[in-house]
Amino acid sequence: MFKECFDKVRNQSPLIHNITNYVTINDVANILLACGASPIMADEAVEVEEITSICSGLNINIGKLNRHMIPAMLLAGKKACELGHAVVLDPVGVGASRLRLETADFLMKEIRFSAIRGNISEIKTLMYGSGRSKGVDAAAADALSGEDVEAMAAALKEYARETGCIIAATGSVDLVCDSRTCYVIRNGRPEMEKVTGTGCQLSGLMTAFLAANPGNYLEAAAAAVAAMGLAGENGWSYMQPGDGSAAYRNRIIDAIYNMDGTILEQGARFEIIC
Amino acid sequence: MFKECFDKVRNQSPLIHNITNYVTINDVANILLACGASPIMADEAVEVEEITSICSGLNINIGKLNRHMIPAMLLAGKKACELGHAVVLDPVGVGASRLRLETADFLMKEIRFSAIRGNISEIKTLMYGSGRSKGVDAAAADALSGEDVEAMAAALKEYARETGCIIAATGSVDLVCDSRTCYVIRNGRPEMEKVTGTGCQLSGLMTAFLAANPGNYLEAAAAAVAAMGLAGENGWSYMQPGDGSAAYRNRIIDAIYNMDGTILEQGARFEIIC
Amino acid sequence: MFKECFDKVRNQSPLIHNITNYVTINDVANILLACGASPIMADEAVEVEEITSICSGLNINIGKLNRHMIPAMLLAGKKACELGHAVVLDPVGVGASRLRLETADFLMKEIRFSAIRGNISEIKTLMYGSGRSKGVDAAAADALSGEDVEAMAAALKEYARETGCIIAATGSVDLVCDSRTCYVIRNGRPEMEKVTGTGCQLSGLMTAFLAANPGNYLEAAAAAVAAMGLAGENGWSYMQPGDGSAAYRNRIIDAIYNMDGTILEQGARFEIIC
Repeated sequence: MFKECFDKVRNQSPLIHNITNYVTINDVANILLACGASPIMADEAVEVEEITSICSGLNINIGKLNRHMIPAMLLAGKKACELGHAVVLDPVGVGASRLRLETADFLMKEIRFSAIRGNISEIKTLMYGSGRSKGVDAAAADALSGEDVEAMAAALKEYARETGCIIAATGSVDLVCDSRTCYVIRNGRPEMEKVTGTGCQLSGLMTAFLAANPGNYLEAAAAAVAAMGLAGENGWSYMQPGDGSAAYRNRIIDAIYNMDGTILEQGARFEIIC
Repeated sequence: MFKECFDKVRNQSPLIHNITNYVTINDVANILLACGASPIMADEAVEVEEITSICSGLNINIGKLNRHMIPAMLLAGKKACELGHAVVLDPVGVGASRLRLETADFLMKEIRFSAIRGNISEIKTLMYGSGRSKGVDAAAADALSGEDVEAMAAALKEYARETGCIIAATGSVDLVCDSRTCYVIRNGRPEMEKVTGTGCQLSGLMTAFLAANPGNYLEAAAAAVAAMGLAGENGWSYMQPGDGSAAYRNRIIDAIYNMDGTILEQGARFEIIC
Repeated sequence: MFKECFDKVRNQSPLIHNITNYVTINDVANILLACGASPIMADEAVEVEEITSICSGLNINIGKLNRHMIPAMLLAGKKACELGHAVVLDPVGVGASRLRLETADFLMKEIRFSAIRGNISEIKTLMYGSGRSKGVDAAAADALSGEDVEAMAAALKEYARETGCIIAATGSVDLVCDSRTCYVIRNGRPEMEKVTGTGCQLSGLMTAFLAANPGNYLEAAAAAVAAMGLAGENGWSYMQPGDGSAAYRNRIIDAIYNMDGTILEQGARFEIIC
């Protein structure tokens, strides 16, 4: 039940360590507070092992990647794995440069991620080695139409099997898979693409959901994806005359703040493909 | 026509590479999305040439400058020039330290900028080697009164001729010049100074306008300046009781989100000095 | 009088140099503008002495600490002391890693701070060498109940005497002390904890209040703390249906923008323990 997954975040208030890009770092911290978790941001190699040790989840995001952050990602990731923490990778813009692709590959070899959360173009880049992403945004050509969903779900399940990670590919339809089961989630609004960082925020949120639901990663990851999409719907319902993408940015976080397990359970729209 | 300039941004959705300060990096990304462009933020020297190659415009901002970002600025700038992209320099706080002044000078020697956009104090510092800016804000003494406008327009045209760049000096009145023509733009509100990053946002916006209007840089730069000022006016019209500078920050971005070429054409207030 | 302390900020518009974490750097800049001060953010060692020389206050914040920022903190801090500027330390997350604790200790040995502003867990960590903070948030166990206040005030006064600094420990009750006098301030709302960076913003605000009130640091620090708490109350009074923590973030800054000395004087709730 998605309800339980969210309730556990609010009840346990997990402390989440984020090594994340500076574009959306404030939004990630704020959405973690809004969902009931507690954020700490730290990317200095000297302190990240200690920091991650007091946390219960680690969120690694390669957007606006800086070479000097890679050792911090590696050290924190290894320590978090050793401690059995939830570890999430967000491969922001992985198709935009060799550095980002090589870094994602390197981190995936060295760290056993609990989940990888990217837009559909980023996940395709990881799967096939090259993609069609437009910078950090998903390529229009990668949008899923009805009949594509089943084929993509099958491919993602296979990739989840290979990597041993939950794979979450988000877009107009969101797919969240392990090697056997795929949640097809239909929450959200297209206007969310006009707000920078909704993907980064979701990866933070997902880390909190996994950290609070250690025996139940697949459902927790799907619940986080549904919560973010539903926040996009609920936030939109409060839009006033003159509001635009900046108001919407705030309203999405506010909708997470005002959400609980029951609201999520009732608002989530998904089917499961086994 | 300013209308066309803006419509082209919305129709082409140019991908804009930003090497920009971390104070306002989120706002710059959000205003680029709001105007219909697509942002990518990247300042790691290893990847910037590759990143800028998939873009059509480059925005370099020296606010909160870090020495290690200068090689990235140089590499990206040279590559963007080689590819004929629009390249904009925002000399934030150039009068506040030797490092910033020397970096601006160095970049201007090495890179052929399409446009330089700063507040009036920053542009004077570039022109005369020293200025009176108060940190990153324009000095009150530099505010233009009626009779100063023509003299300043003449000086800016001369500086545009010397540098081969469009020069945009913003303040209570905004001047946008090439060597022969000066747009004098009277949009905007004084309360915009109470929001950090409206200048940085404008430089991002201007890069998108130039990228989408390659044969028409002067008018595109002027259109971007008018759009930002008009967004300040339109956003202000939605201010509610209790709102202040933080609400206004959002409302300015929202006004860009809700603007189109027709709204810009009707709201722009400017004269042209030849 | 708190009224005078705030009025001087608005009248003098002090330029404040911030070396601060990238999570909340934008909020710190915006709240400084909102209170009538002028912010400049600079953390590059090469330029910080020059930057701080044109300012009248320096705000050093060790959140999301990066090793490479420590030399900049040291250089700027020494120069600011030499010039007699107000210098504030915010020991964000000082209990979360050795690096942060050692850096705080090092900076406190090398720089004579005018004031240290942290949450109650952070201040306890500084005082006793180890604390119970949950990452960057105060530990629930550290919340002050009625009878604890006097004992804590006595301990803080002793620590103020040892260090020669104003000590401001914020939480459900805020204590602001020098070696002889303690302001016990009861403004604020618990929901402020759900917004990242209210502490960082307060440290920025406090630097501006000290800079504008050089002969009156204790009262100025207390006035800044009361202003932030009152902004939390006044901002909350404008919350609308659907609003949450992101709206609240903006409303707090807006409440500072809309505050003046008279509003502060009337809204501040405090007693003084001598």
